[in-house]
Amino acid sequence: MPLPRPAFLRLPVLVLDLFLQRLQFNGCPLLRALIISRLYHRILLLRFWVGTMSARHQVFENGLEQVELLPATNDDHGGVIVEMKGSMASEVFATLLRASVSEWRRQGKKGVWIKLPIGLANLVDPAVKEGFCYHHAEPNYLMLVYWIPDTSSTIPLNASHCVGIGAIVLNDKRELLVVQEKSGIFQDTGVWKIPTGVVEEELFNLQGENLFMAAKREVKEETGIDTEFQEILAFRQSHKVFFQKSDLFFICMMRPLSFDIEKQELEIAAAQWMPLEEYADQPSTQKHKIFKYIADLCLAKMQSDYTGLSPLRITSAFNNNFSYLYLNSRDLNVSSNSSDQS
Amino acid sequence: MPLPRPAFLRLPVLVLDLFLQRLQFNGCPLLRALIISRLYHRILLLRFWVGTMSARHQVFENGLEQVELLPATNDDHGGVIVEMKGSMASEVFATLLRASVSEWRRQGKKGVWIKLPIGLANLVDPAVKEGFCYHHAEPNYLMLVYWIPDTSSTIPLNASHCVGIGAIVLNDKRELLVVQEKSGIFQDTGVWKIPTGVVEEELFNLQGENLFMAAKREVKEETGIDTEFQEILAFRQSHKVFFQKSDLFFICMMRPLSFDIEKQELEIAAAQWMPLEEYADQPSTQKHKIFKYIADLCLAKMQSDYTGLSPLRITSAFNNNFSYLYLNSRDLNVSSNSSDQS
Repeated sequence: MPLPRPAFLRLPVLVLDLFLQRLQFNGCPLLRALIISRLYHRILLLRFWVGTMSARHQVFENGLEQVELLPATNDDHGGVIVEMKGSMASEVFATLLRASVSEWRRQGKKGVWIKLPIGLANLVDPAVKEGFCYHHAEPNYLMLVYWIPDTSSTIPLNASHCVGIGAIVLNDKRELLVVQEKSGIFQDTGVWKIPTGVVEEELFNLQGENLFMAAKREVKEETGIDTEFQEILAFRQSHKVFFQKSDLFFICMMRPLSFDIEKQELEIAAAQWMPLEEYADQPSTQKHKIFKYIADLCLAKMQSDYTGLSPLRITSAFNNNFSYLYLNSRDLNVSSNSSDQS
Repeated sequence: MPLPRPAFLRLPVLVLDLFLQRLQFNGCPLLRALIISRLYHRILLLRFWVGTMSARHQVFENGLEQVELLPATNDDHGGVIVEMKGSMASEVFATLLRASVSEWRRQGKKGVWIKLPIGLANLVDPAVKEGFCYHHAEPNYLMLVYWIPDTSSTIPLNASHCVGIGAIVLNDKRELLVVQEKSGIFQDTGVWKIPTGVVEEELFNLQGENLFMAAKREVKEETGIDTEFQEILAFRQSHKVFFQKSDLFFICMMRPLSFDIEKQELEIAAAQWMPLEEYADQPSTQKHKIFKYIADLCLAKMQSDYTGLSPLRITSAFNNNFSYLYLNSRDLNVSSNSSDQS
């Protein structure tokens, strides 16, 4: 893209002068107010232009012009990441973005990422007009992306799944910990179900939640019962659950460490220890396959030797981050260690 | 919010008249061009205003004014969903949105969703200025949300996890199907690894991909080998893998149905059947815990009686959609049925 020349600044300056001259001849207050408002607009625009030009051109000692680009860091895959922070006029951003993409293309860069905080929503439209697509969004920011090369894009996909847990908590009297919910699809239906919840990403803590932590937290939040995580007994994958996104729901076996229920007021209408047979006999348990299998899993766990997958903490060789590998530790003859962080 | 009165239209009309009068006295072509450009701008603005006012007010026979709202449908949770389709000027949208939210607040609505196709990126900024936050985005649209009540929001979270699979394919000669990748972190490292890939959401087909389908597809794509899905042997949950999002990686046991390798050119540098001991002895297998456990799982599967989780097709009682429940079918004494859709 050819860069604008400083000569372009002459027009607004000339216009300013002409307007200033005309102000002296004008006795109409309305027109005067309008012209002053226009003047102010022009001055603002001029300030942006001057800012853009001085930002974008730095003449070095060797006489070569250096074009200033948007602030960007390289990613690990031959691309660049722009994290916009301060506010910027849309016009300035559009000009800088075009010059930057042009330069990155020359440099052979691949993917270009732009992270826009929600406070800079005015920059979304200019980025899209320059050919950027949305990649993903969180409440407080939008990530846009542009693939420069002519080859097909290798931009990784956006997160595709919501993740939830259900907690099977059985006491020594063959009773299952169950709740009735105040909202959602089972609201006012009288259905008793196991405590369930969503794995929280805790975006603002910059730390995701492990499945065993989520199960322990949800049981405590909804019923006041302390538990120890044992195994993932089963999990369900469903699709198109929420705005075309998929869902993974993990059924967790928990050992109760306390027994006195203190139900949460906000979400839970009632909570109790219910004889397993009574849970299994509910019409809803017969109707909803997932409820039926939860009852079956409880029975299998109590009566036979049902084995699930339990977490083993492993360390990434790349960054020393912890993650958890859930496996059949009995058959693999290793001991699980979820308690390290639970 | 008090609605603007038609009286506000008088100012631009008056300004237009004054400008038109002044044009006759002006001999300067530059100023003339500028005034004509301003006139054009005013006329456009006037057109939007008139359009907005006529769109928003319809006086019915009974004399009552009816305020026109943005097109919206009710959701199942007491909220409304606006799916913007046709283009609209930002100013018109902002006015209609403010009136609509005001009306929905009066009606006691809860969450307000706005789905904006990327072609309507000009409407992002006005929506944010009205208090909307981002909820999620896909390449071609942005979803914004606003919680009307004073109570805390029950808006469900955005998708939080990417989902991937790794495929263990063992032949009768204790050989593991392995590949070397052309890109990614193992590019040019000489590391032999099992075929891996991402579960595809197939957004445009409006259908998500099941884990067993993803494993079968990836093995076929990368190596040309046909397989039959058997079990999930283990899975790993990691956090902050990609833009603060988490990752679930499922290790799938596959039975080979063919043996002649035809490697994919785009992503795969090499593919082979490798003796399991040779795979296990690689320095990378010792270094990367997940590689080591893959070798352990192979051994456990071949030598002992390691049991994983296998898929069982279940139907939702709500909408007759299929989903898959992965469980230890041997201990639960049920037979899996992934082949229904694989």
